[in-house]
This record gives sequence, structure tokens and C-alpha cells, in this order.
Amino acid sequence: MSGPRPLIYSAFNEFVVSHHDHGLWNQPGSRQLEIGSVDYWVDVARTLERANFDLLFFADVLAPYDLYRGSRDAAIASAMQIPVNDPAQLIPVLAYATENLGFALTQNLLQEHPYAFARKMSTMDQLSGGRIAWNIVTSFLPGAGRNLGFGGLPTHEERYGRADDFVDVVYKLWEDSWEDGAVVADRGRQRYADPAKVHTIDHVGPYYDVVGPHLTAPSPQRTPVLFQAAASSVGIDFAGRNAEILFTSFERQSAAASIEQLRGAAEASGRSRDDVKIFAAFSFVLGSTEAEAQRLAREAADAQSLESILVKYSGFWGMDLDLFPLDARIADLLEAGRGTPAAAYALRTAPDASWSFERFIRWFANQHTVGTPEQIADEIERWRDVGIDGLNIPYIISPGTYDDLADHLTPLLQRRGLMASGYREGTLREKLFGRGPYLPDTHPARRTRRWAR
Amino acid sequence: MSGPRPLIYSAFNEFVVSHHDHGLWNQPGSRQLEIGSVDYWVDVARTLERANFDLLFFADVLAPYDLYRGSRDAAIASAMQIPVNDPAQLIPVLAYATENLGFALTQNLLQEHPYAFARKMSTMDQLSGGRIAWNIVTSFLPGAGRNLGFGGLPTHEERYGRADDFVDVVYKLWEDSWEDGAVVADRGRQRYADPAKVHTIDHVGPYYDVVGPHLTAPSPQRTPVLFQAAASSVGIDFAGRNAEILFTSFERQSAAASIEQLRGAAEASGRSRDDVKIFAAFSFVLGSTEAEAQRLAREAADAQSLESILVKYSGFWGMDLDLFPLDARIADLLEAGRGTPAAAYALRTAPDASWSFERFIRWFANQHTVGTPEQIADEIERWRDVGIDGLNIPYIISPGTYDDLADHLTPLLQRRGLMASGYREGTLREKLFGRGPYLPDTHPARRTRRWAR
Repeated sequence: MSGPRPLIYSAFNEFVVSHHDHGLWNQPGSRQLEIGSVDYWVDVARTLERANFDLLFFADVLAPYDLYRGSRDAAIASAMQIPVNDPAQLIPVLAYATENLGFALTQNLLQEHPYAFARKMSTMDQLSGGRIAWNIVTSFLPGAGRNLGFGGLPTHEERYGRADDFVDVVYKLWEDSWEDGAVVADRGRQRYADPAKVHTIDHVGPYYDVVGPHLTAPSPQRTPVLFQAAASSVGIDFAGRNAEILFTSFERQSAAASIEQLRGAAEASGRSRDDVKIFAAFSFVLGSTEAEAQRLAREAADAQSLESILVKYSGFWGMDLDLFPLDARIADLLEAGRGTPAAAYALRTAPDASWSFERFIRWFANQHTVGTPEQIADEIERWRDVGIDGLNIPYIISPGTYDDLADHLTPLLQRRGLMASGYREGTLREKLFGRGPYLPDTHPARRTRRWAR
Repeated sequence: MSGPRPLIYSAFNEFVVSHHDHGLWNQPGSRQLEIGSVDYWVDVARTLERANFDLLFFADVLAPYDLYRGSRDAAIASAMQIPVNDPAQLIPVLAYATENLGFALTQNLLQEHPYAFARKMSTMDQLSGGRIAWNIVTSFLPGAGRNLGFGGLPTHEERYGRADDFVDVVYKLWEDSWEDGAVVADRGRQRYADPAKVHTIDHVGPYYDVVGPHLTAPSPQRTPVLFQAAASSVGIDFAGRNAEILFTSFERQSAAASIEQLRGAAEASGRSRDDVKIFAAFSFVLGSTEAEAQRLAREAADAQSLESILVKYSGFWGMDLDLFPLDARIADLLEAGRGTPAAAYALRTAPDASWSFERFIRWFANQHTVGTPEQIADEIERWRDVGIDGLNIPYIISPGTYDDLADHLTPLLQRRGLMASGYREGTLREKLFGRGPYLPDTHPARRTRRWAR
């Protein structure tokens, strides 16, 4: 890369007691038990703003993890993403308590009707002064389908069919329904808006029929910044058409090819390669010396709840990991061919096939970059040099990870040109992309605007 | 009544530019155009807290009024309840910015699936420290049905069938799913909750199938305080079973009988007469002298948008009021028998049947109590003496009405024992009813608790 190129920084969180910490909510200094307290979350958001972070990203689930031992009990006992509160309720408060931090809301397409969802997002974008992103989720736990009246899980293809229809509705509401200049707010003539510039959308789709018009006037960004995780090929196609930020958890060594594939998907949809930012997952344990960092990482790993780890990866890999004996050798598990393809894929990443499953899964759950601030910055620089645009960073313990960032990592990253110093003016989209508040005109959302033709 | 009995005070608002002011958003001093600004709304909430108000009540609609001249155009031009932002986004911020004020969210039963709705409300109740009420709405504008995928408007009976099923789901999630004491938050044993005390609800109903468990731990009130408007007989039956606060806009002269009917509906459902508080609508224009108040009321009425009034009452009465010539005599309109029963009912309240329709509708839209603070307090005392428990008070101009309240009316109401001085401790339910944070055990929500039997 030529010259310094700062990355985008996103804090990966969820409105839960325990996200990816696997039980470390019980450690001294953790405030994660304060889940229902606004003050705790405001402190997190303000620390992230002090750390010059771009985003606070809220993951979400709509059912407990219940594959491990065929029950949700272990998830509940260890607080593994249950309770999980509604992040859409928290974000407006955190936006009020901050000035520049952006907020990404995860919401899957089964959860709410697009007409009501579009209003929620427009309102959130207005109240925050245009600092909102939406992480579009098309997949979900089977339990979510059972709780939301969809019975089991629809097929992958049906989910993406629904996704296309859903985004079409919300794009029309956000971009097409109220023209630029529709709101005149003319006190003298007692005229608020020009009805000739406010349109119904008259959407008739395979899943949704929505007349409109949109209930709210345009928000600062109209369409929020669009996030998506990229996984399956159908998913990459959808993401290439729609997403502005794609995040995934690929290996650094093979990242360049994945990045190329994702940018190519955007290009294939008639968009520019630069219209998509690619984020990698990144976690760290920091110490003033390498030895201290290693000790802290070891202590954290030892204090984790093994049950909590097994609950989560059972959910991620779609199987009950209690079927893998803790003392079984990885080589034997692979040879026996038991478990789902996702589990086998993970097992093959083991550095040593003679490890026991317990040793492997504890290692797998703790692939952090461990070291001094300089060493962590070195690793971030390596990520930048393979072409990544941003990092999505979970906490090890909250708010400890955020304090470490603000106190030790941010000043160094800024000195080394790996992080911008200060925020750009304007909406989240302007801050991230350095151009206007709206999507580029090549994006399908913008192409819904009949009045702009 | 024996001795002083303070009333409950609710400010009736909506997340709009124009609620019941009919165009007065254009007047000097109005900040209603600042609809998207958090700071404006925070000022409103803090003024209400300074005025010792119990509640800020947000009405809501999910479609524009579109009966007047068969079009939504006049509604959009005059900002009559469109744009209408999502009040569920605003309430968490206002709760954060206040300490004691309660917040009532209007949400109709078509808008969101009960599983997601229950989580939203539990989160809101947690973040606010238990200061949330839900105004249960079973009816809505036909346009809302068309925007939310229900086609036209379901029948009245079907709406109440759905309402019974919907509240059954959310009651089970709020009250039955997580037992008292389920959350142990035991750091030493790294145990967050006792899985034996967290239950699925396994609800199978005519409209909703929901497995559960609830995604959130119990909030301070579990079930939010339950509001309902009482109108039809099916509605009164439903409200008698469910509502803790019933509001309506009856005439003071006939209020005692209506109050008796509503309390009777609660009793018929096995609840106590005192489990239901009855609110009346009340609006006022205040001056330092009666002459000044009359002048202000006249100026406000003259400045109103007639079109905005006609838009609103066309929606309320279910007809296009453009069919009534503005110069037609009320007596002639009644004799011709044109218009809906709701319109005819309203026309019959005209003080003089020789009035023109324009004179009548302007009067109908402005039935405020006009006078000095003492005169307004006198009228409030008369309301108290017919047995009312609370008042629901719209603004004439915002924030002017709220400043008048805080500066001129509240101190007087408190001196005369018509308003409490200061807030009770605890949740909204504790503040309003002076007993525990939860519903009484006779309420159907509490009777869902299998674990309490």
C-alpha cells in the first residue's frame, strides 16, 4: 500500500451479559452484569468515542442457543447471549450521550414488518443525526423461526427471496417516497410539506405488499449504512448488490483472495469496488510487556466457562458438541467423520491434530493477538497491508477491553497512521466513506427513485 | 368525595409536528417543527417533570389520514399527524433524561409480532427503571392494514380475537417465563441464572404460536402499566379484563355513569373497582385574567388551519367531511341524515343547531377550558368531584402549554390538593397505584404464572 491508510474501527458487542467472553462476566472489573443499566452502556459508548472508534456494532439473536445437550439450560446458566435485550431500544440513548460514534443495529428480516421497520430506522437516524447502520441478517437460529410464527427455518433460497423483497420495500420507503425538498416547513403559508412530492410506493412483491407513503420525512442518511456478513455464495451475491460494509472472520493469510471476491461481487452488481468496505474480526489481549500480556491471556482463558464455549460453537456449527468427548484426539474425530461440515472445517484448523478436543476448543475460542501495544499495532498493520478496510473487535472483558483501547492502543495507532485522529464531519456514511450522506446513485436503493429520473 | 384527592396528570402527545393543534405549529414560540431534534423532546419531558406530571403519553398512527377529499394531500400539507415518527425510539432517550416521569407507548396489535414486541417493552422498562406504560390499540386506520400486509381492515370481532391472543402471549412472556429469583448472578459459581426457573411458554393460539422462553430477564414492572381507550362494548369488555388505566373523552355532565360502567367492567372480570383508573381528556387555555385567556383562545382558534381540522375529524368519524358544505346549517345536515353515525353524534352536540358547519367544527375542535389558573383549577376540581382519577391533556402549542402548566397551574393545583406534591418512590405502577411494582394477582397477566400456583 502507498502511504499510511487508517482503518475503520468497530466495537463488536451485543445487548447481553456475555457475548464472546465465555463467562468472564464474573471477573473483577467486569460490569457486564449491569446489562439493564443505561449508565453502564453510556460509559461503554463514551469510552469508545474517547478511543476514536467509528462504530459500536450490536449483534443480536432471537432465540436461545439450544443445541448443546439438546437444551437451552447451559446457555441460560452461563448467560451465553441470553438474556438478550432489544438493541434498538439502547442505540437512541447512546447516540444522545455521544457526538460522533456510529451505531450498527442487527435486525433479521423475520423480526418485523418492513413498513414498521423502515419507520424505526428513519426515526433512529433522525434522532442520532445520521449515525445509524443496519446489519442485514437473513439467517437465524431455528428457534427464532418458531418464536416468530414461521414454524421451522425457511430454506436458504426462500430466505434470500424474502430478503430481496424486504430490502426493496424499505429502499422505496427511504429513497423514493419523499422527494428531496418535499418538506417546506413554511410557517407563513402554514404549509409543512408539498403533497406532490410525497409518493405512495405501491409495492407488490412475493412476500410483501406495501402501499405507503413512508411515515417519516427523510432522515439525514435516508438509507442507513448497510452492513452484512458474507458467508454462502447466495449471501455473497446479495451482499455484493446491497452491502456497504462486509464483515467476515477469514484468516489473514488467505484474506487477500476473499477481499478480491467480495469486491468483485460489488462490481458484478454495477457498483464500484470502493463502494464496499471489508472488515475482519480482530481480538486482542494487551499488556505492558509481552510476558504480562501472555499471563493475562492465560488467566482469562483459564477463567472461562468451558460449557459456555461449547454452547456457542454448538450453535455456530449446528450440532451438539457434547457428542465430541473432551479427551478425544482431533485426528480421531476427523477420521471418524462425525459432526457437521462446519465443525469439521473448524477442527481442521487445529495447529496439532494430536490435541484433545478440549484443548482445541479452548484454543479456538481464544485466538487473540496477545502482546504489547506495539505488537498489536504490528498485527493491525499486517491486516491493513493485505487490503482490509476495518476491524470488528469484540471485548474480552467489558469495559476493560475498551479502557485498554482508549488508554493504550488508540494513541499508538494514531501515531502510526493506522487510525484517523479525530472524526470527519457529517453523517456516519460521510465519516466512513468521505463523500455525501446518501448512497451512491449506482446502489439499488437509489435506483428506486422515480422522481430522480 | 371526602378530603382532598389529587388527580393523575398525563400529557397527551404524539411524535409528530402537529397532534391536536390544527396548524398552530406555525405560531411564534412553537418548537413543533423540531420534530427530529432530541433536544426539543428532552425539553418537553423535563418541563413536564418540573410540572410534576405523572406521564407523557404518545399516541400513534400507522397511515396518513386520507378520507378528506379522498386523499392524503391535505394531511401532508398541514402536517396533520404525518410525518409520524416511531415513539418507541424516543421514549428511552426521554427516560434517560428524566427521573420520575412515566411514558406511555401506543402500539397497535398489527404492528409487530408479540414475541419481538414483548422484548422491546421489557427492554424499555429495564432501561427506564420501570416507568413504562403500554396503550393497547386494537383498532386503526384502514391504511395501516394495507401497509402492514393485512389487506383491508379486519372485522371488529376478529380484531378483539387477535387482541386476546396477543395479550395472552405477551403476558406469558412477561410474567410466566422467568420466575422470581431465576437470575442469581453468582460470580463465584459463574452462574447467571437458574435454568429450572426459566420456562418456555408453549403458546398455541388462534393467531400466534410462540414457544419462548422470553429473551429478557424480568423488568422492574414485568408487565408495563396497561392503558386502553374505551369505546365500543366489545372494547369495554376487553378493557375491563385488561386495562389499568382507561381514558375516554366523555362529557363531564354524564361522566359519573360512564365511570361506573367502566369500573363495573373490571369487577365483572373478577378484578377490583380500584384496579382501574379512569382518565378524561382535558384541554385548557390559560391567561392571567379571564379576558386575556379568552383573547388567547380566540387568537389560537383564528390561527388554526380549517383544512387540518377537517382532515382529522374526517379520519375520526370515518367520512369525507368535504361532503358537508361549510355554510350548511347543522340542523339541515342532521335532517338530511347524511354522514356516518359518529359524525351525526358529534353534530348533535352543537350548542345551537342554526350554526354553520364551519362554525360548529371550529368550535368542536376547540372545546378548551379557558380562564385564569384559578378557573382552570375549579374545572379540574369539578372533574375530580364526578369521580375521575386522571386527566389526559393535549397541548395547544408546544412547548407553550407545558410552560404554562409548570409555571402557573401546577403550584396552584398542588396548593388546592388537586395534584400531589412530588413523586412517590418506585416504578410507574407504584407511583400511580401506591402499591407494588407488579399487577395485582387477580389480573389475567398474573394468572398465567404456573410457577406461582
